[in-house]
Amino acid sequence: MSVLTLAKRIFLGKPIATKHAHHQRLSKIFALPVFASDALSSVAYATEATMGVLMVGGSTGYLHLTFPISIAISALIIIVASSYYQTIHAYPQGGGSYIVASDNLGSVWGRVAGASILIDYVLTVSVSVTAGVLALVSLWPGLHQYIILVNVLCVALVAMVNLRGTKESGMAFAIPTYSFVALVLIMIAVGLFKQHQITPPWTHLDNEDARLLGTFLLLRAFASGCTALTGIEAIADGVQAFKKPESRNASITLSVMAVILAVMFLGSSWIAQHTGVIPMDQDRHGYQTVLAQICLRVFGQGWYFLLLQIATALILILAANTAFADFPRLCSFMARDGYLPRQLGSVGDRLVFQNGIMVLAILACVLIFGFKGHTDALIPLYAIGVFTAFTLSQFGMVVHQLKRKHYAIMPVSLVGGCVTALVTGVIVLTKFQEGGWIVLVALAILLTIFWGIRRHYDYLAKELSVTPEDTLKPIRTTVLLLVPRVHRGILQAISYAKSMTNDARALHVMWDPAFTKQVKSDWNKFAPDIPLVILESPYRSLLEPVEDYIDQAIAEDPSAMITVIVPVAVPKHWWQGLLHNNAAIPLKRALKSRKNVIITNVRYFLK
Amino acid sequence: MSVLTLAKRIFLGKPIATKHAHHQRLSKIFALPVFASDALSSVAYATEATMGVLMVGGSTGYLHLTFPISIAISALIIIVASSYYQTIHAYPQGGGSYIVASDNLGSVWGRVAGASILIDYVLTVSVSVTAGVLALVSLWPGLHQYIILVNVLCVALVAMVNLRGTKESGMAFAIPTYSFVALVLIMIAVGLFKQHQITPPWTHLDNEDARLLGTFLLLRAFASGCTALTGIEAIADGVQAFKKPESRNASITLSVMAVILAVMFLGSSWIAQHTGVIPMDQDRHGYQTVLAQICLRVFGQGWYFLLLQIATALILILAANTAFADFPRLCSFMARDGYLPRQLGSVGDRLVFQNGIMVLAILACVLIFGFKGHTDALIPLYAIGVFTAFTLSQFGMVVHQLKRKHYAIMPVSLVGGCVTALVTGVIVLTKFQEGGWIVLVALAILLTIFWGIRRHYDYLAKELSVTPEDTLKPIRTTVLLLVPRVHRGILQAISYAKSMTNDARALHVMWDPAFTKQVKSDWNKFAPDIPLVILESPYRSLLEPVEDYIDQAIAEDPSAMITVIVPVAVPKHWWQGLLHNNAAIPLKRALKSRKNVIITNVRYFLK
Repeated sequence: MSVLTLAKRIFLGKPIATKHAHHQRLSKIFALPVFASDALSSVAYATEATMGVLMVGGSTGYLHLTFPISIAISALIIIVASSYYQTIHAYPQGGGSYIVASDNLGSVWGRVAGASILIDYVLTVSVSVTAGVLALVSLWPGLHQYIILVNVLCVALVAMVNLRGTKESGMAFAIPTYSFVALVLIMIAVGLFKQHQITPPWTHLDNEDARLLGTFLLLRAFASGCTALTGIEAIADGVQAFKKPESRNASITLSVMAVILAVMFLGSSWIAQHTGVIPMDQDRHGYQTVLAQICLRVFGQGWYFLLLQIATALILILAANTAFADFPRLCSFMARDGYLPRQLGSVGDRLVFQNGIMVLAILACVLIFGFKGHTDALIPLYAIGVFTAFTLSQFGMVVHQLKRKHYAIMPVSLVGGCVTALVTGVIVLTKFQEGGWIVLVALAILLTIFWGIRRHYDYLAKELSVTPEDTLKPIRTTVLLLVPRVHRGILQAISYAKSMTNDARALHVMWDPAFTKQVKSDWNKFAPDIPLVILESPYRSLLEPVEDYIDQAIAEDPSAMITVIVPVAVPKHWWQGLLHNNAAIPLKRALKSRKNVIITNVRYFLK
Repeated sequence: MSVLTLAKRIFLGKPIATKHAHHQRLSKIFALPVFASDALSSVAYATEATMGVLMVGGSTGYLHLTFPISIAISALIIIVASSYYQTIHAYPQGGGSYIVASDNLGSVWGRVAGASILIDYVLTVSVSVTAGVLALVSLWPGLHQYIILVNVLCVALVAMVNLRGTKESGMAFAIPTYSFVALVLIMIAVGLFKQHQITPPWTHLDNEDARLLGTFLLLRAFASGCTALTGIEAIADGVQAFKKPESRNASITLSVMAVILAVMFLGSSWIAQHTGVIPMDQDRHGYQTVLAQICLRVFGQGWYFLLLQIATALILILAANTAFADFPRLCSFMARDGYLPRQLGSVGDRLVFQNGIMVLAILACVLIFGFKGHTDALIPLYAIGVFTAFTLSQFGMVVHQLKRKHYAIMPVSLVGGCVTALVTGVIVLTKFQEGGWIVLVALAILLTIFWGIRRHYDYLAKELSVTPEDTLKPIRTTVLLLVPRVHRGILQAISYAKSMTNDARALHVMWDPAFTKQVKSDWNKFAPDIPLVILESPYRSLLEPVEDYIDQAIAEDPSAMITVIVPVAVPKHWWQGLLHNNAAIPLKRALKSRKNVIITNVRYFLK
């Protein structure tokens, strides 16, 4: 067991027994929480994001615009969901933005969509986790001073759960998601009923200056609130995870999700506005989220508040989980098309999947550090990627439907595409200075990387394509077996060497002539038919004499394959491995430029 | 070129061309600076260490004891050097304390000596470099605030010079060493001449209290001053580096060194005492070493002062260099005897040597951080290891001479052994609380590690020894060749597989049936005689189907050797390597517990 394995055991427990632990098909009732946690969780921060922008200069004078903006955003939710409804039927194999855009708008736009989504997953993890932690801070203000630490621990926790492979256990998702939905809906209902008993709304500003300032402000607030739409594409990506008939089940689930999302978002915005909630500065001690403030106004401090905060934290952390599940999958699509390293292509391999999770977790933590755990600072970055992908996906659907002459449904995608394009423009314009430029720079860097990788693979394909002149030439193999001494573990290696070729030779590096004499006599007992070559080593080097001999063997017959067999002991405990030399490793390094040399380990297992 | 190689190129420049760049034989005139820099450099701090202890409670009342203590220490220098003189003739192959003690006192004492010396090398690097940096601080007081950084950079510098392999270029050692000796000797001569013109000595304390306190103080001061003896054993370790006749040349060099050392130490102690030098607190801004103060009193601020400080810094850094050269060599002796991992045994291998250097540099930096760059805090730790090794080495020589009936010279070693044993006791007693216990703990830990390692190797030898029942059994080899697609680079691998066995099979993991069809038809053109096995992979995993097939092949014939050949592209540039999958690595990890499986790469080089 290696050190790495040991570390994994400690942190992740025993590996899961079944090698083939893959996705199970989900019924609608379990699929909703699995795929909708990302979208529904945005209720926890979207209203606050809108109101935060409206609190210009610390004044409450624009907060009455919260609900009107929410209506516009809810309309957008319905439009985008309708477009994805079409996508689900058009791409029952799973139609992420990358695939839809590549397929219909061409590879360049596909790559833009792919890069946007990859960036977005990193941001999803950061935003969701920081928002979840803020919900906990509303509950226990003492956490405030450890906020970055708690964020990083939460990212690590979600990453670890995913590394273990239990990524979509229905129940784990269902309880927090349905609890959150139920708690928010009941709160809205009770709030609507009680609303005139609670604090009256703020007084309105009503002068000319305010109105002028208001146009750009309105756009910025709208752009911030658009984070409510994030995660809405998740169902379209994962159609194959539904029970049969997949498309039908997925599209029904999407519709239900969109309605719930719109209702929750509208409802909480209405109550926030009509109970005079004022968004707080996150750096302030005693900070409470808008959702927490609503709950306090409706139910006061008590068990309901406690439950809602916990459910909020859980659903937000589950939203991060979705990104962890999809990030490696998208990488595998892009790797298959030659835009990412090929080794990411086999997503079914645990190792590849785990590497994707580690990369995502590290990038998310870097962002959390960089922005010091501020959700509101991360949100503008977030929306750019999401809406770029939405736009490309929907225009892709327009082309798809035009090709297939589905003129009746095409306008839905067209309207969706135009609106999201407009929103993307608004977000880029209004959020550029607040960090939006970082996303654009990241996008440019990613696209350059994709281009460079693809170029290398294209070159490779050309370089390696077989031509009529290429034929198989028979090869002569020389086997060199390293023999430090004759012991039980080396016997199998001798037999193996014999089985491979007629030209097997044993190499022994001499440090002590008396010991070498013993080795010689032992060798002649076991393998008199294989010549034992004694290599002198005046400077007590193991590698140099072997390297020199190999070079000599290459010179003897430059066309022969030289196979160097290095017997190596495999001890029972990993730490014992530190005491066992594997000469194959430095030999490989030393001989890496010799073309016809193969270095291979024959292992013997210690009892 | 790997990332590691690239990093090495940047930091260390091009590798040295000759693979066999080993020690050259040295004449006496060059051997003296190479081997004596450690010993002679102690003049830079030994007097100060003595005086520092005598400055009890900030009073100068005991500083008049400096010279008397120096006389005792100089006598010790002559005794110890005489003993090593014998060692050189008895062990012309190089007689470090580890070898002499193991050979004569038994393995346990040998290990104690070995552990002491290993600890000591770490301390040598720390003490020498921090002292060298202090010399520079005396010159440019502005360095004081960056003292730890400068220390670490110096350790890194010496380590890098050693990693490059230019460890014993005579001239580089000769100039600073001879300059230092000349500058100190001239300073002493001029100082003796001028002494009554300079500041008068301090007034003496002369009451009963001071005398009582004085006994323990005297011992502590003596123990601290004994650091003057460090490095005295270096010549005995490296006899083989001298020109023939090695023993004669080495012993003459040792005598010359001992005399120069004693003269320099006595002289500087005398002047320090008679010009009223007061050791300063190292934390004080404007700190100056005792040697710097002497120089200022004798010559004033000027070019002589500048030269002396630079020569001091250089000789101290060269002293660290000696440790870097010897640490890996001692490790190799102990590895050969089974007390350290066997892979350290082949000291002639650059990699092994480099690993030793890295370990030493890291440990030295840890100490420098831990003690915040204070030479005086490190010195007590230093002396314990040195004197333990001296004692064991000299008692070893007593036994050696008794066995050979060299009764005439035996008393020298006996006296040396007894005196150094006494000094060791004094140092342990007086320095225990100041950090001496750390050395004892480190010693205990090292001895436990030695014991554990040796036990494992003994067990291994027993486990692996060949018995009359062990015979060679012929082996049948099944070769499985992974074929992602048929391209030019795979052709050699096909020939290789064919050359190895009659039972070669090609494995292709199918992701896309259309692509697989193409692979099949290509394959039949090139290697119709090797069956192509198509493995299905519903979850787009590369490894799982291969693993399953290998398990199946094992089940077919559990006695066969399964050789999995993974063709792998070797790109021209290291960063392109990131885009090439080497399935052998995860396969090896996945199959590490399967006994009869060998996984091997056949490389093809891209143009």
